[in-house]
Amino acid sequence: MVSHPKDDEYLNAAIPKRIKMFEFIQAEQKTQRLSLSPDPIKVTLPDGTVKDAAKWQTTPFDVAKEISKNLANNALIARVNGVLWDMARPLEQDCELRIYKFEDDEGRDTFWHSSARILGQSLEMEYGCKLCIGPCTTRGEDFYYDAFYGDLGLNDDHFKQIEAGALKAAAKKQPFERIEVTRDQALEMFSDNKFKVEIINDLDADKTITVYRCGPLVDLCGGPHIPDTSFVKAIACLKASSAYWRGNKDRATLQRVYGISYPDQKSLKEYLLRLEEAKKYDHRILGAKQKLFSRHELSPGSWFFLPHGARVYNKLIDFIRSQYRVRGYQEVISPNLFNMDLWVQSGHAANYKKNMFILEIEKHEFGLKPMNCPGHCLFFRQFLSDWELPLRIADFGVLHRNEASGALSGLTRVRRFQQDDAHIFCRESQIKDEVREVLKFIDYVYEILGLTYDLKLSTRPEKFLGEIATWEKAESALKEALDEFGKPWQLNEGDGAFYGPKIDINVSDALSRKFQCATLQLDFQLPDNFKLEYSAEDEAKIETPVMIHRAILGSVERMFAILLEHYKGKWPFWLSPRQAIVCPVSEKSQAYAEKVKDEIYSKGFHVDADLTDRKIQKKVREAQLAQYNYILVVGEQEAETGQVSVRVRDKADLTTMSIEGLLERFSEDAKNFR
Amino acid sequence: MVSHPKDDEYLNAAIPKRIKMFEFIQAEQKTQRLSLSPDPIKVTLPDGTVKDAAKWQTTPFDVAKEISKNLANNALIARVNGVLWDMARPLEQDCELRIYKFEDDEGRDTFWHSSARILGQSLEMEYGCKLCIGPCTTRGEDFYYDAFYGDLGLNDDHFKQIEAGALKAAAKKQPFERIEVTRDQALEMFSDNKFKVEIINDLDADKTITVYRCGPLVDLCGGPHIPDTSFVKAIACLKASSAYWRGNKDRATLQRVYGISYPDQKSLKEYLLRLEEAKKYDHRILGAKQKLFSRHELSPGSWFFLPHGARVYNKLIDFIRSQYRVRGYQEVISPNLFNMDLWVQSGHAANYKKNMFILEIEKHEFGLKPMNCPGHCLFFRQFLSDWELPLRIADFGVLHRNEASGALSGLTRVRRFQQDDAHIFCRESQIKDEVREVLKFIDYVYEILGLTYDLKLSTRPEKFLGEIATWEKAESALKEALDEFGKPWQLNEGDGAFYGPKIDINVSDALSRKFQCATLQLDFQLPDNFKLEYSAEDEAKIETPVMIHRAILGSVERMFAILLEHYKGKWPFWLSPRQAIVCPVSEKSQAYAEKVKDEIYSKGFHVDADLTDRKIQKKVREAQLAQYNYILVVGEQEAETGQVSVRVRDKADLTTMSIEGLLERFSEDAKNFR
Repeated sequence: MVSHPKDDEYLNAAIPKRIKMFEFIQAEQKTQRLSLSPDPIKVTLPDGTVKDAAKWQTTPFDVAKEISKNLANNALIARVNGVLWDMARPLEQDCELRIYKFEDDEGRDTFWHSSARILGQSLEMEYGCKLCIGPCTTRGEDFYYDAFYGDLGLNDDHFKQIEAGALKAAAKKQPFERIEVTRDQALEMFSDNKFKVEIINDLDADKTITVYRCGPLVDLCGGPHIPDTSFVKAIACLKASSAYWRGNKDRATLQRVYGISYPDQKSLKEYLLRLEEAKKYDHRILGAKQKLFSRHELSPGSWFFLPHGARVYNKLIDFIRSQYRVRGYQEVISPNLFNMDLWVQSGHAANYKKNMFILEIEKHEFGLKPMNCPGHCLFFRQFLSDWELPLRIADFGVLHRNEASGALSGLTRVRRFQQDDAHIFCRESQIKDEVREVLKFIDYVYEILGLTYDLKLSTRPEKFLGEIATWEKAESALKEALDEFGKPWQLNEGDGAFYGPKIDINVSDALSRKFQCATLQLDFQLPDNFKLEYSAEDEAKIETPVMIHRAILGSVERMFAILLEHYKGKWPFWLSPRQAIVCPVSEKSQAYAEKVKDEIYSKGFHVDADLTDRKIQKKVREAQLAQYNYILVVGEQEAETGQVSVRVRDKADLTTMSIEGLLERFSEDAKNFR
Repeated sequence: MVSHPKDDEYLNAAIPKRIKMFEFIQAEQKTQRLSLSPDPIKVTLPDGTVKDAAKWQTTPFDVAKEISKNLANNALIARVNGVLWDMARPLEQDCELRIYKFEDDEGRDTFWHSSARILGQSLEMEYGCKLCIGPCTTRGEDFYYDAFYGDLGLNDDHFKQIEAGALKAAAKKQPFERIEVTRDQALEMFSDNKFKVEIINDLDADKTITVYRCGPLVDLCGGPHIPDTSFVKAIACLKASSAYWRGNKDRATLQRVYGISYPDQKSLKEYLLRLEEAKKYDHRILGAKQKLFSRHELSPGSWFFLPHGARVYNKLIDFIRSQYRVRGYQEVISPNLFNMDLWVQSGHAANYKKNMFILEIEKHEFGLKPMNCPGHCLFFRQFLSDWELPLRIADFGVLHRNEASGALSGLTRVRRFQQDDAHIFCRESQIKDEVREVLKFIDYVYEILGLTYDLKLSTRPEKFLGEIATWEKAESALKEALDEFGKPWQLNEGDGAFYGPKIDINVSDALSRKFQCATLQLDFQLPDNFKLEYSAEDEAKIETPVMIHRAILGSVERMFAILLEHYKGKWPFWLSPRQAIVCPVSEKSQAYAEKVKDEIYSKGFHVDADLTDRKIQKKVREAQLAQYNYILVVGEQEAETGQVSVRVRDKADLTTMSIEGLLERFSEDAKNFR
């Protein structure tokens, strides 16, 4: 355990001052709330039950207690009229109420968000650091806290101390308490922390600023949080690294501490084991071992796919392309550079420009495309308006996104990638069929890849564009499509994009990690921005088509990484860049080995021959390490009979087969995606 | 015929002043030459004959007269020790001499370059314009002259007047006379023409400045030229358009007049007919008609390949890719954006930067790749150093070049394109075999595409990098490779790139137009710039590999255009985006038509069905216009017998075939690239 001199002034002056201010405002707000009239309100539960409650008094926790003791004991967070809400925060009007436990995504995310506060409390108390931001990660399985420590660099040696501080806070059952503050109050409260001051100054003018307290920690935070720290029974630090304030390397250098927490020790242990396992099969490690891809400092965020990696990459694209034929998609090839006017029309210039690579050509601004949709709208409007709907336009074009170099990570966070992207332009009446067929397409592909997935329908959010009637028709078409498709799905009310409802598809890999790869998103907005039209069925009027954004693999780069980890480096035969190797037992069978290799190669398989003078046992061992699916041992006997001894990867036993039999097996494996 | 007020001051003052100065300097230089001692020198002819000559006196024309009257009458230009040389210019030392006629590329190019002067003379005399530049085009089949005309815009109506002026000049048998001038003399001579002044000021300090006269035209020009204007018996204007001075639209607007000339009327007529024919089959016209590709002002120079165009594009790539497998190439996928440091190391930053799209990322300059070679050097050095040589790295990556928007033209001059690019890294001892195999690859592909070609070996130029011994070994390896390959080839001495010798491959299309598509270029320089190395055969020493740049199609976009024009829009079956269409004779056979279509589609062919209620004759006519290779007519009789009536594109007769028979024929056509 390494200890560090604390910043006593910060701890002894700034923090108590914040707590005092918090308590003062909290008392004031409580008084104010108590003065409000506790009018009766109605609380509707998910099963339709309606409960009576008192405005400004009844909390979700009160309702949970009425429902069951078990629920009250395990409730972490509520959703009130679509908004996540602290269990202890009084209700303010008639509402629909849902309550979430750790088993729910909402519960778990809040649990980890709150755990970041417990971690922050420990960091602040142990090191007197200036806290910056502490979210749960976008991966949704851990959290971190960035803080400024002056010269102190944190590492594994500090973890015991940090964990001890966090567990102490957890044991104290500190409630998470919420107040609302004015901008001036917030600035005064955090005047000793320039990072928080910058965050406050950057907030929109109409934003409600909230501050949470748990124990000695008073933190600027949008919340919401779990009821108190005691729910966190197990917490661990995972990693410490340096990070830049606002991801900008010209700003202050911070320390980032990653943590994980659970409501019980057993889950934490399981998680840490899984993490250990995942590290072993990290795609960056396997990719280097198998010589699939590499990177170079001269092109950060763009990977170099080596010959064997390119085989897998191209195979994934070919696989999808062959399905496009079956499923009636039209592939196009489109430009990579577009005048900024296109991105203005699409709306990307306003919302996405900082994520784009911009350059100047003959005094005009151009952007490297970060996505294909606006280009496909041009296709539809300018060139393909005589095609019948639905029109499914597919594009494997190269996309670029301007990710900060510090944020780049393996194949999963890149600047250059390709997608199995397609856009379906259809009539409103075709939404159901199109969506169902996309779901079937996704199911077909994921089944073959061995990935399981779950489905959620995200519907109209509070802020939305377009007509409510259009939304409702589309949502019911999506529901019907989901039902016709037949697999279970969940409703994620109010979680759609502002421009259309969507279906979220979360895949799970062999290590039970979840990823979002596929996209199935309706869009009422882009067709409108681009003034797309078609003649309606009765041909009398002109209507705007609906656009469906869809991808199955998503980014080919990212899917490559997921599959490499999912298979733990053991590619199935059809996708494998090293399908077979011929190993002659001695020099005498070398010629036969080459003949066998050539015959297999000529049939289109990835086959090599090990013609070194190493011992056969060594050759087989190397071939196993290189993950060849089939190891074909040939000696004089095999040469005489025209056969091969076949060893399937990782299996000890050998079978003898004729070359024809083997080729048939290979073809069957490939055809059946084995 | 439209006439235009001439700028009398220019014609009556500036031009006579220039002629006077020319004559003065010419007389001075003649006197000086005559004062030099006419020492005997040796002139070696291509057949080895050695002729005696007098230094500063004997001209190539004198030598030609000695050889034959016919040669002297037809000689247009000479090459003296590798340098192109006017027929009337005295020899200066012992030399190797070659003489060219119109039939030779050198003769024809000079003929057109001189014709540009005759055109310029006419333009200057007729319109008093300020001449700018007048080269023969890079296409090598015509020439143009850019000039400044004030407000005058030229068009077809001016052509008769221009042609008359040019023919008048030709009839006068004006000799092309050459003088050398100092920079100050040049500036004085062209002081009334700011464009020529700018050109003169931009010339390197050590450059010899030459001025040519023919008749009243005195022009700043590097030459050389044909003996006199009388060789030009036929001349015509082809096109007039506006152009910008230095291709920069912020500079002066010029008028560009294109012309063509021949030593006889018949050739001109044939050329104009061919041009007419070519216009009909212009790929831009056919591409629009067949809905293959389109462009949009928001992405100039990048084409939108529509579904049918993408089929051809992808097929061309797949075709080459399948050959890569057979011929031992390794495909890779590489980044599109590289830090400028890469382009500095490769040399592109110094010589090619203005042709690149540059952008800034996190305060570093990055360039969108205009070619794959430097990236492939990284592959070799960083990731693939353990592969055995020869290593053949192939890449279909997207390339971008910053062409001025004014220079963009169809699919042949673009900003965004893909190549069937590959680089072979090999030992010196492997050059011969590798080059021969590339030649075979080219032959295989062009044979299938129906393109003929000729071969030229370009050897070490005056300015070169590397060791002479290396060059000589490489050149003899190239010669051996050409000989082993077995087709005739020509020697183009001294015309190699400074970094290595190359083989020029000129393809000819159905209209006898020549294009350069394939590349076969040795490079000693880039491997050195990137410090590439491999262990030599005896493994004791480290050597630098030779790099061979090679492409077969070249730019896929450009080859697409060439093939579209070459086939006159009639794609062969294997490459066709519309292979077959099923036309039911009436509604009764509609179901059968769909069944036939589905069966053909499921076998991987591009087939449609015309299910409209139009008459069968109309359907067939439309299908012919759309260039379907097979038109399959089905009626009730065919439905009963399970057959189709097959009509091959452009042929009137119908054959009846079973579906199986038809599919077999399709497979055969595709397999045999018919």
